[in-house]
Amino acid sequence: MRTAQEYRESLQKMRPNVYKFGEPIGDVTTHPATRRAVAGHAQIYDAAQRAEYQEILTTLSSLSERVSRYLSIIGSADDMILNVRMKRLMFNLTGTCTGGRCVGFNAINSMWASTYDMDHDLGTDYHPRVKKWLASAQKEDIALAGALTDPKGDRSKRPLEQDDRDMSLRMTAKEGDGGIVVRGAKVMIAGAAEANEVFVLPGTGYKEGESEYAISFVIPRDAQGLTVVEARHPSDGRDLESGFDNPVELGGITQGYLLFQDVHVPRERVFMAGEWKHSLRAVLNFIAPYRSAIGGCVAGQGDVMVGAAALMARANGLSEKVFRDKLVQMTVNNETTFGLGIAASVMGKLHPSGAWIPDAKLANVNKVHVATLPYETKRLAQDIAGGIAETGCLPSAQDISSPIYGELLQKYLKAGTDGETRAKAARLIEWLTIGEGVPGCMHGGGSPDGARLMINALAEIEANIKLARKVADIKEVSAPEK
Amino acid sequence: MRTAQEYRESLQKMRPNVYKFGEPIGDVTTHPATRRAVAGHAQIYDAAQRAEYQEILTTLSSLSERVSRYLSIIGSADDMILNVRMKRLMFNLTGTCTGGRCVGFNAINSMWASTYDMDHDLGTDYHPRVKKWLASAQKEDIALAGALTDPKGDRSKRPLEQDDRDMSLRMTAKEGDGGIVVRGAKVMIAGAAEANEVFVLPGTGYKEGESEYAISFVIPRDAQGLTVVEARHPSDGRDLESGFDNPVELGGITQGYLLFQDVHVPRERVFMAGEWKHSLRAVLNFIAPYRSAIGGCVAGQGDVMVGAAALMARANGLSEKVFRDKLVQMTVNNETTFGLGIAASVMGKLHPSGAWIPDAKLANVNKVHVATLPYETKRLAQDIAGGIAETGCLPSAQDISSPIYGELLQKYLKAGTDGETRAKAARLIEWLTIGEGVPGCMHGGGSPDGARLMINALAEIEANIKLARKVADIKEVSAPEK
Amino acid sequence: MRTAQEYRESLQKMRPNVYKFGEPIGDVTTHPATRRAVAGHAQIYDAAQRAEYQEILTTLSSLSERVSRYLSIIGSADDMILNVRMKRLMFNLTGTCTGGRCVGFNAINSMWASTYDMDHDLGTDYHPRVKKWLASAQKEDIALAGALTDPKGDRSKRPLEQDDRDMSLRMTAKEGDGGIVVRGAKVMIAGAAEANEVFVLPGTGYKEGESEYAISFVIPRDAQGLTVVEARHPSDGRDLESGFDNPVELGGITQGYLLFQDVHVPRERVFMAGEWKHSLRAVLNFIAPYRSAIGGCVAGQGDVMVGAAALMARANGLSEKVFRDKLVQMTVNNETTFGLGIAASVMGKLHPSGAWIPDAKLANVNKVHVATLPYETKRLAQDIAGGIAETGCLPSAQDISSPIYGELLQKYLKAGTDGETRAKAARLIEWLTIGEGVPGCMHGGGSPDGARLMINALAEIEANIKLARKVADIKEVSAPEK
Amino acid sequence: MRTAQEYRESLQKMRPNVYKFGEPIGDVTTHPATRRAVAGHAQIYDAAQRAEYQEILTTLSSLSERVSRYLSIIGSADDMILNVRMKRLMFNLTGTCTGGRCVGFNAINSMWASTYDMDHDLGTDYHPRVKKWLASAQKEDIALAGALTDPKGDRSKRPLEQDDRDMSLRMTAKEGDGGIVVRGAKVMIAGAAEANEVFVLPGTGYKEGESEYAISFVIPRDAQGLTVVEARHPSDGRDLESGFDNPVELGGITQGYLLFQDVHVPRERVFMAGEWKHSLRAVLNFIAPYRSAIGGCVAGQGDVMVGAAALMARANGLSEKVFRDKLVQMTVNNETTFGLGIAASVMGKLHPSGAWIPDAKLANVNKVHVATLPYETKRLAQDIAGGIAETGCLPSAQDISSPIYGELLQKYLKAGTDGETRAKAARLIEWLTIGEGVPGCMHGGGSPDGARLMINALAEIEANIKLARKVADIKEVSAPEK
Repeated sequence: MRTAQEYRESLQKMRPNVYKFGEPIGDVTTHPATRRAVAGHAQIYDAAQRAEYQEILTTLSSLSERVSRYLSIIGSADDMILNVRMKRLMFNLTGTCTGGRCVGFNAINSMWASTYDMDHDLGTDYHPRVKKWLASAQKEDIALAGALTDPKGDRSKRPLEQDDRDMSLRMTAKEGDGGIVVRGAKVMIAGAAEANEVFVLPGTGYKEGESEYAISFVIPRDAQGLTVVEARHPSDGRDLESGFDNPVELGGITQGYLLFQDVHVPRERVFMAGEWKHSLRAVLNFIAPYRSAIGGCVAGQGDVMVGAAALMARANGLSEKVFRDKLVQMTVNNETTFGLGIAASVMGKLHPSGAWIPDAKLANVNKVHVATLPYETKRLAQDIAGGIAETGCLPSAQDISSPIYGELLQKYLKAGTDGETRAKAARLIEWLTIGEGVPGCMHGGGSPDGARLMINALAEIEANIKLARKVADIKEVSAPEK
Repeated sequence: MRTAQEYRESLQKMRPNVYKFGEPIGDVTTHPATRRAVAGHAQIYDAAQRAEYQEILTTLSSLSERVSRYLSIIGSADDMILNVRMKRLMFNLTGTCTGGRCVGFNAINSMWASTYDMDHDLGTDYHPRVKKWLASAQKEDIALAGALTDPKGDRSKRPLEQDDRDMSLRMTAKEGDGGIVVRGAKVMIAGAAEANEVFVLPGTGYKEGESEYAISFVIPRDAQGLTVVEARHPSDGRDLESGFDNPVELGGITQGYLLFQDVHVPRERVFMAGEWKHSLRAVLNFIAPYRSAIGGCVAGQGDVMVGAAALMARANGLSEKVFRDKLVQMTVNNETTFGLGIAASVMGKLHPSGAWIPDAKLANVNKVHVATLPYETKRLAQDIAGGIAETGCLPSAQDISSPIYGELLQKYLKAGTDGETRAKAARLIEWLTIGEGVPGCMHGGGSPDGARLMINALAEIEANIKLARKVADIKEVSAPEK
Repeated sequence: MRTAQEYRESLQKMRPNVYKFGEPIGDVTTHPATRRAVAGHAQIYDAAQRAEYQEILTTLSSLSERVSRYLSIIGSADDMILNVRMKRLMFNLTGTCTGGRCVGFNAINSMWASTYDMDHDLGTDYHPRVKKWLASAQKEDIALAGALTDPKGDRSKRPLEQDDRDMSLRMTAKEGDGGIVVRGAKVMIAGAAEANEVFVLPGTGYKEGESEYAISFVIPRDAQGLTVVEARHPSDGRDLESGFDNPVELGGITQGYLLFQDVHVPRERVFMAGEWKHSLRAVLNFIAPYRSAIGGCVAGQGDVMVGAAALMARANGLSEKVFRDKLVQMTVNNETTFGLGIAASVMGKLHPSGAWIPDAKLANVNKVHVATLPYETKRLAQDIAGGIAETGCLPSAQDISSPIYGELLQKYLKAGTDGETRAKAARLIEWLTIGEGVPGCMHGGGSPDGARLMINALAEIEANIKLARKVADIKEVSAPEK
Repeated sequence: MRTAQEYRESLQKMRPNVYKFGEPIGDVTTHPATRRAVAGHAQIYDAAQRAEYQEILTTLSSLSERVSRYLSIIGSADDMILNVRMKRLMFNLTGTCTGGRCVGFNAINSMWASTYDMDHDLGTDYHPRVKKWLASAQKEDIALAGALTDPKGDRSKRPLEQDDRDMSLRMTAKEGDGGIVVRGAKVMIAGAAEANEVFVLPGTGYKEGESEYAISFVIPRDAQGLTVVEARHPSDGRDLESGFDNPVELGGITQGYLLFQDVHVPRERVFMAGEWKHSLRAVLNFIAPYRSAIGGCVAGQGDVMVGAAALMARANGLSEKVFRDKLVQMTVNNETTFGLGIAASVMGKLHPSGAWIPDAKLANVNKVHVATLPYETKRLAQDIAGGIAETGCLPSAQDISSPIYGELLQKYLKAGTDGETRAKAARLIEWLTIGEGVPGCMHGGGSPDGARLMINALAEIEANIKLARKVADIKEVSAPEK
């Protein structure tokens, strides 16, 4: 398996098609806009080499030998539990999201099952293509991003009703050899800059007549015709500064807009090309493990928030015991999303392809919590930390080292520890709660309203009515017509 | 295994030592104060005979053959998951708690592990006693209640500081043959009237000098010297009425005060007799599965509340779809406690005795939710149901059948269905949310404050501080002395 | 002004047209089903005579002299504030609702304004009728209930679409002298049994063609053709018992079904008779003060819950300081609904008739809190009180005084105080949180969903969009067509 | 009264003692770090000149003529209500806090009352000094900041126990003519850069022996020996950019660290100089109006969030009606804090000095809501807005206008409106919820824990116990000794 150094070198060899602030990013491993996120993803390669993390970060593949879990098929409840724990671990180590690998991981698993079904139903040969590509990806131990979200345009209209049919990524041509040409965009794609390849899925379930949008494939991140523009984050101006105002060096998020200008995808990397009837299932196969595992993500960041808040209490000269109730509530929040991720994992089912599909109802219930509980956890972290951290109400690192008044600032920032240490702890709280470390837990993997719609669809209201009627011996009451 | 009829007969054969309203209850299977609770527990025996429920309600014992799960050792995560599902099922079937079996079940498992440890540490022979008794209990398929809670007296004092040392159940004598004599009380004991035997555990962890309180044993519910006084419930006056104002005939709760007036327990039924060092662990061994499985309980009642609320919407002439958001929230609440029960089950560990101990942190996090979410679920059920069900704002069944004005009431109660059906649905909502069906989910199995204390003890604040420090490269900050 | 004794005598003189459990209630002042509620309402007459409560409970009428505030026109923000405080006071004194007076009070004020508008718009003479009747009601100092809620039948249909057009109260005839005949019912009417007269309002806004339903009038509670059937409450079986299991002797709620079988109302008591265009406004004029003042109601009961919980803590042997955070949260809840009632009062407007109409948006915001916060307050009271109070998990008063085991029960109930006192405190918690004392705060005065609809109608989304656009200099964005 | 232009000129005339990023800010009205905040404060001067806002923003002073409300004595409940409305208005107009005037306003009122009391109790002449200074401040119509918060150092120690006694601002000398010299710092001071003068209050209540800390005075912001270092905010790097990534030009916050290096304050500007017994009251006099009016602040920003969220829905191609429930909840939150501010205002009392002191209990209840509800409002705004706004997941303005791919980005950002408009709306949501617009509502004016402590002190637990005992006729239960 790759070392972190080999990972960095693999990124350096790629075509520089990533931009931010209107400028190309020459080397993503050193450019201030991306180097922290690359460092975060590099921690995965580092940790996978260490015995203590091997159970979580690696597994034995049926296709080759010991491989990164991020490039594996989730074959059992146990695998899925280790996935949830892996997410928690990586947030523990980087403080934030390493989305440049986990979305790709989910995409592999989704299409592992969906290509199996397509081949079974339609006689296609997609599943062997996935298998072959995956074996090689495992061998090279690539970093793989995943891409679902389309720009979509006007939300009240379907793709072909838009003024411009490119508003969802689409296949503009099928080539004689089975390759395809795609045009459009995928937006808010985590970790593209940190990835070697990108696994593309359909963004939603498509209907008859919309087959041009029902596409899945994998391409190098630096493919011809593909341009990546990185989005801004809160306080990302600090990436360009020195000093500790961006307090985390070994973790970071990027979310890119992937612009496809007639990109060619060769046959062996095409996994869906118009089979619209299977597009919804591909999305659902993605959602179930994603919305389960994200419970580990927010728990993992929650762990860091518990620690940062307790650290800040000490830095203020107080025992963290003063804030026991709040720290317990933060812990309850962390364990709730983690636990529901575990529960969804365990209550899942094995797909005939060998992929384990977590329970959809529990996964979506978890998504609802993931979109709400971390907000409370952040609020409590700010509550414990005091005004200095609430909105980062603290002079800059430059000011703190000013020859004119830096000494005075350090004098007045001193409390339970020296002024600079306290300032760094406050910056960490800011970073976690209102700064660059905040991941997109509400809409990442779909919105909570979407999750509620799925819970509604999966809720067994009729069965529950029957229980109620039986308990109290009540006759049937029909639903009103309107 | 026993039939329901055999279960009823076993109860009828017992000494009538159960009282309510100052009077003895002759036959618990027919007396209005207890017959519904007996009917609820009888459903367990009925269901265990049916193929569809056999996986959940029975298991293969290492001690004998197919036995009731309620009399089994939880030997794996899978067993524990089935326990959570069993609780949900029984609430589904009875609308409420069948505590006369589940507490006993937890008590067996706690002492299975604790007697193993005692024998290992102290050279006692308690574990074989449990094993022998259990084999016979399984064979007879008894209904077994469990008893932990002591009166305790003044909460600010320890047992021996009380004015009266009987305020916690205690051993007043050890007999030559190894039997013991006990005096005191256990209070708020679920299902004593519905049980053949009662498994007694220490109510808390005891300290040196308090060994008289560190006792565990099992006795017949009608043992000499034992008197059971059943507590009141909300609206329990309706038990004595005819008509549908107590709408549930096949389920009910009893919670009794067990008064021990120098009760003799023979050697083979004594499982702890003074080993105070093991008392806390016995309680913890009880708490972990109990606080996990209770997530299934409240989910099971929540299912009935979802159904009753949807039914009531229809009875009011409205589609339940009008209340989609509220029903989804109720479902989220149900699946949250169920899911955390599953998670605690899965993340547990095998005790050397062969008993599976669920994860304590997740179990206690679940207890916190169990003490809060059902209140929201009840509120939402009332919200959907309308004023007629909120405080049971509806004339009595007698009024509805009054020859003078009953017809008028029925006319005006009519909405999406006839008046009487709507009235019954409203009574079910009342029963579930503010009536006899409300189980003691807040303090049952211990208070939420107790759970929070355990979460605090299990939270890894120091480890989390270390994560935070590492993420932002912050030096160590010591906790203040005071 | 009347004394409590005169009030009781006035009730005793009335025709016995009140029923419960299928039987007529001969004397509402002594019958166990109503005597507590009468005693609660009698406290108003008592307190109005006492100097300390005079500012709150009485006022100077423009029509006569010092009168009960319950029979006054709310003429200013200050009057309205005193109304909110009066509700809080009465819940403080009785522990629950004295709805037999406050709904009538709101009805007077609503129709004071609406008759003024009708006379102005239509040339009718309703306002002088209200004035004349009110002067006499003030003089006699009557207890006046109010009645809005119609049975309504199928909620998905309008009144004339129902199978039976009586499903909302309607005028079946207009007599030559201006009197009317009414048929139908008003349901869940608070305090009818405790009232001398009933003020009837339209239950909703009616449309063209539905004028038969647009009616308002006042009648004696014992009018010919009117039958009152009292609804059940949680645990109302205890009303018939002796002992302290119904712990409150001087307060109680009744909610009746009023069956109108062609009741004649003479001209001078008719205040609306078909003017459907004014029916919605009459309801809105009722809602604004009602939903403001109800914030005082739930705060008043909340005060008692704070006290009961603190008392129970002491009875358990603990200082209430242990529960500081919970008691503070309960206090926050109380002051929130009280404060929003005050705010709605102050931000109101004077109607040309001289009636003060509180701010509708704040009143409805308060209604949303009134339908949720008390549920949290109740939960916290149970949390503090312990299992003994959660579901009334305590033997009956008869058991506690049993000659056989009563002494033992008292021994084991003892904690921070003697057993009986502790039992009484636990019964009070039960009564407040899951017993007879629970008022219908969720649907009383309309449902929270209704309040949310009004907030939506009153929210100034367009104005807020304009603010947002101006702040960030964003051009206009039109709403989509569909 | 001053025009906005005169206000700007007054700032330009001042000594450049304000710093950020290690550099002095030459002209605060044009420097990118401060010009938006100055523009926000200038809006106050502009609006005060306009008829539509005159009632809210100005008042008639007893000392001179029509003056800015920010320089007036709050003399009645009506004045206080207008204060709450003024805060809401200014957040409506600027999208954020104009703290450079409101803290000073509260400070004036606090010391108006406290100097009156000191003069009364101690025979000092502080009150006439305040009066004289205020008359002149009104005449010049100055912008006045206020400063309370001291660095405090180790929170577990009192000021004189700190290693360095400068950790709270202190008087190092009293001069012969009654002037004083002060050293130390005030930190996180809103709007210092936008103010002409700064009104200093004691940061907490001091005890005997700590009189050097009990000081109050007013000084020019550019006084000799005073240095202001401005703190960073989230995303404040964008202040230095062009383009719309900082979307608000006419509003902004600054929070400064004020370093006092032996600053001389002349006699006529000294309002407390060692009278430690009056220091706590000065703080409490400040807190009551501050914690009331802040309810208007967060409601005012909430209005903008409602508008921004609805605007974003439209920009996404959806009607805001889809999000009705969420917008209603946001509105409920806004009106709750606004309403409680009104209630605290109305239930206040007149101090003998003529200053109106709002009700402390309601003010502190409001502070608790102010520290929690806006977090929910922000979450709902992000929920409605979609992933594009959650963490500002959108390329920079430079990218959107890139000659290489800007057109493509604009194409794909298009939805219910053109791409750039939608991007600006998303930036506004980001600014309001996780960017520069977020005010310090949790710790501003003190922490929610501090508010809870005050509620605990003001809660009438004993009185409530008495109510409970009376309602259920329960005898007295004494509190346990420990």
